[in-house]
Amino acid sequence: MSSAKPEVSFIGLGAMGFGMATHLLKQGYKVTGFDVFGPTLERFKAAGGGIASKAAEAARGKDYCVCMVATAQQAQAVLLGRDTPAVPALPNGATLLLCSTVPCGYVQQLQKQLSDTGRGDINLIDCPVSGGAYRAAEGTLSIMVGASDQAIAKGRFLLEELSDPEKLYIVKGGLGAGSNIKMCHQVLAANQILAASEAIGFAMHLDLNLQETGNAVIHSDARSWMFGHRLPRILHPQFQPLVSALTIITKDTSIITSEARRYSFPTPMTSAAEQAYFTGLGRGYGPDDDSGMVRLYTEGKDKVGPVDGLVESEAEKNALVQGLLRGIHLCSAAETLAFSHYLNLDLDQVLELCVNAAGGSGILESIGPDIIKTLREGRPPQSAGAYRLQQIAQELQDAVDEAQRLKAPLILGSQALNLIRIVQQHAPQEFREHAGAASVVKQWAI
Amino acid sequence: MSSAKPEVSFIGLGAMGFGMATHLLKQGYKVTGFDVFGPTLERFKAAGGGIASKAAEAARGKDYCVCMVATAQQAQAVLLGRDTPAVPALPNGATLLLCSTVPCGYVQQLQKQLSDTGRGDINLIDCPVSGGAYRAAEGTLSIMVGASDQAIAKGRFLLEELSDPEKLYIVKGGLGAGSNIKMCHQVLAANQILAASEAIGFAMHLDLNLQETGNAVIHSDARSWMFGHRLPRILHPQFQPLVSALTIITKDTSIITSEARRYSFPTPMTSAAEQAYFTGLGRGYGPDDDSGMVRLYTEGKDKVGPVDGLVESEAEKNALVQGLLRGIHLCSAAETLAFSHYLNLDLDQVLELCVNAAGGSGILESIGPDIIKTLREGRPPQSAGAYRLQQIAQELQDAVDEAQRLKAPLILGSQALNLIRIVQQHAPQEFREHAGAASVVKQWAI
Repeated sequence: MSSAKPEVSFIGLGAMGFGMATHLLKQGYKVTGFDVFGPTLERFKAAGGGIASKAAEAARGKDYCVCMVATAQQAQAVLLGRDTPAVPALPNGATLLLCSTVPCGYVQQLQKQLSDTGRGDINLIDCPVSGGAYRAAEGTLSIMVGASDQAIAKGRFLLEELSDPEKLYIVKGGLGAGSNIKMCHQVLAANQILAASEAIGFAMHLDLNLQETGNAVIHSDARSWMFGHRLPRILHPQFQPLVSALTIITKDTSIITSEARRYSFPTPMTSAAEQAYFTGLGRGYGPDDDSGMVRLYTEGKDKVGPVDGLVESEAEKNALVQGLLRGIHLCSAAETLAFSHYLNLDLDQVLELCVNAAGGSGILESIGPDIIKTLREGRPPQSAGAYRLQQIAQELQDAVDEAQRLKAPLILGSQALNLIRIVQQHAPQEFREHAGAASVVKQWAI
Repeated sequence: MSSAKPEVSFIGLGAMGFGMATHLLKQGYKVTGFDVFGPTLERFKAAGGGIASKAAEAARGKDYCVCMVATAQQAQAVLLGRDTPAVPALPNGATLLLCSTVPCGYVQQLQKQLSDTGRGDINLIDCPVSGGAYRAAEGTLSIMVGASDQAIAKGRFLLEELSDPEKLYIVKGGLGAGSNIKMCHQVLAANQILAASEAIGFAMHLDLNLQETGNAVIHSDARSWMFGHRLPRILHPQFQPLVSALTIITKDTSIITSEARRYSFPTPMTSAAEQAYFTGLGRGYGPDDDSGMVRLYTEGKDKVGPVDGLVESEAEKNALVQGLLRGIHLCSAAETLAFSHYLNLDLDQVLELCVNAAGGSGILESIGPDIIKTLREGRPPQSAGAYRLQQIAQELQDAVDEAQRLKAPLILGSQALNLIRIVQQHAPQEFREHAGAASVVKQWAI
């Protein structure tokens, strides 16, 4: 890098984009921002940025352009839409970082549009990010990069400015692979966000102390990054502070399930989660923090008529909550890795990325490597590993049985149990007794 | 039968029991009724019945006793509970008709309790009924009978009084088989009740005329008995008249899924339906007619933010609604028949019973026979039959895609699509193109 830092245009100054763009300002870049929301532009100007009232105006003459809008539709509009879009204004050989979370199919279609309109000179980088607004502003995001070697070489310094050096993932597979790995990570996110609400809702039906139950989960193998992160807001009466709106994760589930349908690939866990999220949207929870989904699970407590649980001791009840989470985490890990395998992603890289990011869980760490072996070799390893499938199924079933007695919904728990039972149903009896938990991935992929 | 009709005791005078008991009165039987609800007893007295304030008092000296309470728990209480129960008061060799819908396991446990307490002389008949309060009062119920030949011989005249002669099913398999076949029938009922709400809710998101859409379904192969029966109440602003409360079908789903779990048998369709019902219970819909479940699907319409469907013509939209229903009906048919097969029921009898009862659907009629062949032979018939699986999947997927754009929940539709995709995922490519719809049953059983 020369010491004079290049000018950057930045399109999309939402919670994430604003943090990223102001971080670049602090690092000494001259940044010209564009956003459709006027007050945001004024705020960016106050922070020292240049501003533009059109995408083209921001992009004109800048060799580097970062696009951080919310959806593929918005990206298409600001990059190539009708209203003075950015791409035609970019100089020859410019580098375009598409940081939005979009379907892989969109990134590839965008590349084709660039070629078809004579702008194949642009170095397009598919580089969705993860980590939230705070890390965006600190320049320590996780970034998943898929692009040609040439494009990566051009844009690398900017990616390095925006990311934690240990969390900049150059994904094999070229353009679109970044979006695919982000999408697969979000399978875990989507399931584990809902699982946290499901577990705490169940704990409430069990009349447990929720904070203690939550703490016990966090210190057990039923933990997940999402559970730890959402717990305080699930327990807050107004689900405050608003960190990630329900509409954000439903945007991601839409990408996952529509991409999966495009390939005729099954995603029964994420689909079940998505349907629950749609029910939440219908209830008007969309603008609230996604931790507010716990209401879907708790609203019937003490109102659904006489219920009569069987489990009495606190220790046994806590075991049910943890058994529920392990079962869900197992199936969400299997769905993530099976989908990644289908998309020809590097499974070791997927696992490393997920374990160290918001998709992490105790079960993913323990069982993920065996799931990968099972996917690669077409059958589970000889040794069952730390968890037998039958044991996870039985403990999950205990939770589903008790929830049924209490008329408490366990949307993901009941789905996970059925998926495990289908796998077992197709296998010989001795498999049922001895198989390792990783073998559940057969439901998706083998 | 001699011309003097025997005395009958009748325990449980709810909507069904009251109709059955008064029908027996009209046929010239002397009937002594018992119910925990005083006003009902008075009403039965006014209708010409004898009444008793304790179960034992009703049963004493009567050679025939009909038990038509709501649950296994209630049956246990009135038959063998602490408070002057019926069984000890029955004369030697009495015949006991257990008409309640209960798990097979309960019926068998009751037989064992009778033997263990020295009352093996009682002729216990497991004979759950179906058909609603109107047919109960007309003596034209469907009755599914499982018992020893001796017990059936003793109780047959009473079963004939209560049932339509074409709908009295003597089920092979002895005691408990009646409950099992009823349970398998209720798999269809549970899914198709919810499917009717799901389809009409979807039609509302599509801005269709609901009455016209409903009529079109009824005259198509997407029809089901439940759809036709529930449609007027789904369209009624208060879901009136109250014919079958949501708490009734959730009682049945509890039996289905808990029995399935006892056998480790998967019921992914019924479990998804049950979870939706639990969400409905949580909303306070329990006492309402089950057609009120449509609210779960419609409450978000025009409130979930900007949505943008792709399908424009009315004909195409109607095709989506019907494609949704065919996909759900296929998977509910497969789940029903696979579970029946697992329970060693006579599949021809199951199919005949279901097609002619509340579980009937156009798809069950067309594809049921091939599903049965697939289950018996371990592989689908050579000919694909009238429906290819890929075609049903594609049309279902079109519905799920559009619903996702509209942010409309399709809980069962999305579940059915994933189940079909899993089956296809495991099969070679040529299977995917040519396989008949019946092959979906592999997901459950082969």
